[in-house]
Amino acid sequence: MMTNSDKKPLILVSNDDGYSAKGINSLIGVLAEFGEVVVMAPDTGRSGKGCAITSETPIKYSLVSRTDGIEVYSCTGTPVDCVKLACDALLDRRPDLVVGGINHGDNSAVNAHYSGTMGVVFEGCMKGIPSIAFSLCDHAADADFTPTFPVIRRVVEEVLRRGLPKGCCLNVNFPEKAPYKGVAVCRQAVGEWVNEYEPHEHPRGGKWYWLTGEFVTEEKDSTADKVALNNGYVAITPTRIDMTDYDLMREMKDWEL
Amino acid sequence: MMTNSDKKPLILVSNDDGYSAKGINSLIGVLAEFGEVVVMAPDTGRSGKGCAITSETPIKYSLVSRTDGIEVYSCTGTPVDCVKLACDALLDRRPDLVVGGINHGDNSAVNAHYSGTMGVVFEGCMKGIPSIAFSLCDHAADADFTPTFPVIRRVVEEVLRRGLPKGCCLNVNFPEKAPYKGVAVCRQAVGEWVNEYEPHEHPRGGKWYWLTGEFVTEEKDSTADKVALNNGYVAITPTRIDMTDYDLMREMKDWEL
Repeated sequence: MMTNSDKKPLILVSNDDGYSAKGINSLIGVLAEFGEVVVMAPDTGRSGKGCAITSETPIKYSLVSRTDGIEVYSCTGTPVDCVKLACDALLDRRPDLVVGGINHGDNSAVNAHYSGTMGVVFEGCMKGIPSIAFSLCDHAADADFTPTFPVIRRVVEEVLRRGLPKGCCLNVNFPEKAPYKGVAVCRQAVGEWVNEYEPHEHPRGGKWYWLTGEFVTEEKDSTADKVALNNGYVAITPTRIDMTDYDLMREMKDWEL
Repeated sequence: MMTNSDKKPLILVSNDDGYSAKGINSLIGVLAEFGEVVVMAPDTGRSGKGCAITSETPIKYSLVSRTDGIEVYSCTGTPVDCVKLACDALLDRRPDLVVGGINHGDNSAVNAHYSGTMGVVFEGCMKGIPSIAFSLCDHAADADFTPTFPVIRRVVEEVLRRGLPKGCCLNVNFPEKAPYKGVAVCRQAVGEWVNEYEPHEHPRGGKWYWLTGEFVTEEKDSTADKVALNNGYVAITPTRIDMTDYDLMREMKDWEL
């Protein structure tokens, strides 16, 4: 457990692939260069959980390991639950940084809404803590995360030095293939999933549907994160928790309500 | 099943309290005045599921009832899954409107991120369909939804007539107590949950944590949805799926990445 006398930054790490995933274990090695690392991550994969929280059942956490000063806890809850529970029930002081990832798979474009990795980061951000999500566009369990390390170091260093504006967090996505062409600060690409389900007959009758689908986007402009990724760039999308549409707010003055 | 020859607007309805909740059944009575109503809602309560999707197991749906032209289906998935599955596997044509609710409980402020009702509406919005969430700040299973009906009628009428800008949806929250003082077009209030967990000892040892907590906000301005609600107004928060922080995007040009 961290104490207030410890002057190094406290970094809380979580993900949606579970504490044993290669991505999070790659990440904590890099983050340990910058501060005290505490991991509170789901006990198993919880991909696509977005900002889901667990309210109908209680949750718990358990210590998995304590190695080289890095404490790893597993939690029965969602990615968001992990951040909430760590801050409320485990840590003695407020984290200086919340980091989600490294996710096994793409979280760019509108997929930020479905992403448990982004759930981690939204939750940190709601608590006023600078928060960064890292995702690699490779679903493989044994994906090579090594090429992401230099960029992770630079982003973490800049965020620890500058902070982030209140209500704002970073969504960092890495192309599947290294070497990267560079780093691009991007906007969230517009796009949509189509052909989303594959029906299967159940052995005892009835159709069951597996989520599948293709993501389609008409974006061409390289300011869109998905396009930058496709062009070989690391895409950093500054993301805000305030989802108000201020333009429509003004327009709606004319509505008859 | 709706056919293309049917000229009335097709309205897809879902929620996060389940198809049998009083809120959704109150809502579909009102919506039936405006078009053909198809309900695809979770088979039981799935509050706080945000934009969670089900990818690790298959899902299915079943017909619950067909009464007065209103078809009600229950689905084993999350609120977002319900919209995806209805659009992909059930409906013969694209809905003209997606409506979530009426939720039993407040979805204003940053709680929009956790809300399954808003998940319904984000999903509709991502598919390019005008989408509206309705929530009543009353968790009671037998809450009285009648006072919400006149406002729901006006909002639905305006949205069917005007449409909504691409990528934008509405988050409508009603105060617990009627009569309402009026309708206010608002921004998403800033706030944070504190004291979030209540620890309990398990009979066989170990601590389990129940999610509870208090929502605190320093907002005073009545343009914030939570404040408008507290002042007795129906709060309509125009909400966008693009979460890019364009200000930080410009600032980050100076970062060393």
